[in-house]
Amino acid sequence: MSIKIITISRQFGSGGRSIAKKLAEKLGYDYYDKEIIDNVALETGFSKEFVAAKGEEAPGKTVFSYGFESAGMPGIMNGMTTNDYLWTVQRKVILDIAATGKPCVIVGRSADYILREHDGVFNAYIYADMKYRVDRILKLYGSSEKKPEKRLSDKDKKRAANHKHFTDLEWGFAPNYDISLNSGKLGEDKCVDILYGIVTEK
Amino acid sequence: MSIKIITISRQFGSGGRSIAKKLAEKLGYDYYDKEIIDNVALETGFSKEFVAAKGEEAPGKTVFSYGFESAGMPGIMNGMTTNDYLWTVQRKVILDIAATGKPCVIVGRSADYILREHDGVFNAYIYADMKYRVDRILKLYGSSEKKPEKRLSDKDKKRAANHKHFTDLEWGFAPNYDISLNSGKLGEDKCVDILYGIVTEK
Repeated sequence: MSIKIITISRQFGSGGRSIAKKLAEKLGYDYYDKEIIDNVALETGFSKEFVAAKGEEAPGKTVFSYGFESAGMPGIMNGMTTNDYLWTVQRKVILDIAATGKPCVIVGRSADYILREHDGVFNAYIYADMKYRVDRILKLYGSSEKKPEKRLSDKDKKRAANHKHFTDLEWGFAPNYDISLNSGKLGEDKCVDILYGIVTEK
Repeated sequence: MSIKIITISRQFGSGGRSIAKKLAEKLGYDYYDKEIIDNVALETGFSKEFVAAKGEEAPGKTVFSYGFESAGMPGIMNGMTTNDYLWTVQRKVILDIAATGKPCVIVGRSADYILREHDGVFNAYIYADMKYRVDRILKLYGSSEKKPEKRLSDKDKKRAANHKHFTDLEWGFAPNYDISLNSGKLGEDKCVDILYGIVTEK
């Protein structure tokens, strides 16, 4: 199995990004995470913050848009929604990355789905139990008004809805990936080792 | 992480059983698969074939039982269904295995759920894409009247429904396991290596 691109989908707070970064360093592969947002912002003229926020949204989940959608009018009347437009640009950015032929690790952004027709792509999903993630986000980001469990479950729901909207796939359903790892149980370094072992096999 | 019991849930045709057997041999652990059915048969007086067939059923899915269930009467009137009874015996057999304290590998039978309160349990889910599984079951079991794709998807549905019925958990949803492996992509031996590496770590 010749793997050139590893995509890492992850639950917020699971350490999936950190695992992806360490893996890319260990392999000497390029690493794409916020760089994708930067490129989408550059391409569209929207701010990075706007692009990042939209990428985590569950499209069509406002009361306002429900009204239009139930009338067969997605988004605002018949136009393309901003979410849909950003998806097409993000898709192009990810396809361009793959087209360079340089080995890389890509975090999030449904890259697993976008690159599903490409050879040499390996898709990993990283998750952990609630307690592990709560401890981790409190250490990394501090507390906020919203309870950490609520922050995490809101993020989970949004990511799942966003993924479902654009790919029609269940986020976190094992058969949609090549491997799924519980980082809380295994530890970040073991996750990196397992993925490194798979990519460098043979 | 001190692991004494590894449970292997698997899609039919994925080679999960073969991976579990090789892993148990490599670790020198006891191996439980059909042994559980044998013990349930011994305990209940039902034949092994009957116990095995019931264990793959999606309970409450017959037209006949639907009638009673919709009237608030599960199974035949108010009695326990055979499926439910077999579940309780199977649960006891698995708890007894765990209580011996001897390290082991257990295949299927929702052992991951049954042992969820036990320390030192590691839960793996093995799956593969349809083509890999079709090729594998045709080689192992030959063809039958039913198309192999249909045989596989029927089995998947039944196992998922059975698991859902007794555990209320989504079968194959990654966060319900500690690791999920695509045996078709990784190969059986690599799956064994990864699991062996996790168990023997430290």
